[in-house]
Amino acid sequence: MAVGFVGLGVMGGPMAGHLLAAGNELVVWTRTPAKAEPLVASGATRAENLTELARACETVVVCVSRTEDVEAVVEGLRPGLQEGALIIDHSTIAPAAARALATSLAADGVSFLDAPVTGGSMGAKAGQLTVFCGGEPDVYQRAEPVMAAYSKRTALVGPSGAGQTMKVANQIAVGGALLGLCESLAFAQRAGLDLVQTRELLAGGAAGSWAFDNYGPKVLARDWTPGFSIANQRKDFGYAREAAGEVGAPIPGVDLVDSLLAVLDEEGHGDWTTAALFDLLARGVKPA
Amino acid sequence: MAVGFVGLGVMGGPMAGHLLAAGNELVVWTRTPAKAEPLVASGATRAENLTELARACETVVVCVSRTEDVEAVVEGLRPGLQEGALIIDHSTIAPAAARALATSLAADGVSFLDAPVTGGSMGAKAGQLTVFCGGEPDVYQRAEPVMAAYSKRTALVGPSGAGQTMKVANQIAVGGALLGLCESLAFAQRAGLDLVQTRELLAGGAAGSWAFDNYGPKVLARDWTPGFSIANQRKDFGYAREAAGEVGAPIPGVDLVDSLLAVLDEEGHGDWTTAALFDLLARGVKPA
Repeated sequence: MAVGFVGLGVMGGPMAGHLLAAGNELVVWTRTPAKAEPLVASGATRAENLTELARACETVVVCVSRTEDVEAVVEGLRPGLQEGALIIDHSTIAPAAARALATSLAADGVSFLDAPVTGGSMGAKAGQLTVFCGGEPDVYQRAEPVMAAYSKRTALVGPSGAGQTMKVANQIAVGGALLGLCESLAFAQRAGLDLVQTRELLAGGAAGSWAFDNYGPKVLARDWTPGFSIANQRKDFGYAREAAGEVGAPIPGVDLVDSLLAVLDEEGHGDWTTAALFDLLARGVKPA
Repeated sequence: MAVGFVGLGVMGGPMAGHLLAAGNELVVWTRTPAKAEPLVASGATRAENLTELARACETVVVCVSRTEDVEAVVEGLRPGLQEGALIIDHSTIAPAAARALATSLAADGVSFLDAPVTGGSMGAKAGQLTVFCGGEPDVYQRAEPVMAAYSKRTALVGPSGAGQTMKVANQIAVGGALLGLCESLAFAQRAGLDLVQTRELLAGGAAGSWAFDNYGPKVLARDWTPGFSIANQRKDFGYAREAAGEVGAPIPGVDLVDSLLAVLDEEGHGDWTTAALFDLLARGVKPA
C-alpha cells in the first residue's frame, strides 16, 4: 500500500524524495501545489485533499511546522484514516500536543509516533537525519523501515511526547552552543583579534562545538541565509519554555538567547540564520 | 643556559616535567616546596628564591594563578633578571595586566610573552596543550622551542595582551557550551528522559560540543571533582568582564553563567568542577 507524505518544504521535500527513490508508492499533499511537481514528475501521485490521501495510505508521514499545523493536518486526514493506520510526525511541536494527538488518534484505532528530526536541510537532502521517537515500541518498529529511507539514526526515547521532549533538550543545548559561538566571536572582533584565527583555534579545543564547525564559517562570511532561521529557533524555544514550565526546569540560557534573537526578529530579520546573533552582539546590543 | 620554571601546580608540574624530560637544565621555584621534590629527584635544581632563579636562567617560564600572582613573581624575579632575558607566562590573567607587564619589563630589556594555555590538566600531563601567544614575533620565535616540550599547538595571535584576549574569547565560548550542556541535561532529567541516551543522542548532532563529550560523562556520574574548578572559571570570567568592558562587548552569557556558578560557590562548592552547574539547575534553582 502507498505511503502518504504531507508537507514538502525544505525538510519534507527531500525526505519524500528519498522515500520515492527507495521504491515506495508515494501519495503527496502540500499546501503549495507547485512544491509537489518534481515528485509527481518522478512518479508520486498528488492527492486532491488530505482525506483522500488518508484513504489511499496506511502510513502517513507528516512534516510541517507548528503544533497548530499538525493539528490541522490530522483533522484533514481523520475522515479518511483507516483503523490500524500509522501517522509519523516529523514536525517539531509541543510535547504536550504530541501526547494529546496520540491519545485522540488511539481512540480511532490510529497509531501516532512523534518523531522530530535533527540534521537540518543538509541532513534531509543527504538522507542522514537523526530522529527522536516517542510512542509504543510496536509503533516505532512499524515506522522504522519508512524512516530508514532518510535517516542515519532513529531512536525510541520513551512514550508519546518523549520524542518532542528530546528535541526540546536538543534545542536547549543548541541555544547554549550558539551563544558561546556568537558571544566569543563578537568579543574577539571588538577586541581586535583575527576572526578566522579565533574561530579555528577555539574550534579545536575545550570551546569547540558543532556550532563552531558549522555556523562559525557563516559568521566569518557574514552569511545570514538559513541554515536554521531565527523564526524557527524561536518557535522551538516557545515549545521549550512550555515543556520546561510543565516540569519546573529552569532554562535561563534559552530565555537569554530568545530575548536576543527577538531583537533581530523585531528588526525584520526572522528569516536570517541563528548565527546572525553574532551581528547583534558585535553591534554591542545588550539584552533588555 | 638553564630554563627556569615558577609554579608547579596541576598545570605547571607536568609542564616542567616535560621540559626536564626534553633534556633541559631546569631550575624551579614554587610556593609549596614539597611540590618541587619529584622534579628535583629527576635532576632539577630548586632555587632558594625567585631572584636567584632569575640570575641562573635566561628563559623563565611562569605558570601561576591570578594577575596579582604573576605580578608578585615578576617583582621577585626582577632584581636577578639579565638584559635579554625572556619570561613566558602561561598563567591566565587580565589582558591589560599582561600588556602592562610587557611594557614595564621592556624598560629593563626583558621580553615578556603572554601565553595562556588550554587543554586542562589532561593536556598538561600529555604534553598536548594549546598556547595562545601575545607579543613580538621574535619573542614568540624564541619561546617556541621551549613551549614545544609540552604543547601540541602554539599560535602567535597578536601583540602583547592578545594571547590573554584569545583566552578570554575561549572562556566566553566555554561558558556557553557549559550552559547548553547543563541546562539541557537538567531539563531532560526533570522531564523523565534517560540521561545516558540524551547525552549520547545530543552529542552526535547540532547540539554537540567538546563539553558534551568531556563533561557529559561527569554529569552522568555526578562526579564533581575537577576538571576545571568553579573558582577558576569564575576567576577567568572576571578577566573576561574586565576585557569585554574595555572594548564595549556585551557578554550576557558569561554574566548569566557566572551568576549561576556564584550560587554553587557561595554554597561552598568553588572546588567542584564547572559541570556541577547541572546539579544547580536540576534542583530547579533560577538565576537571581
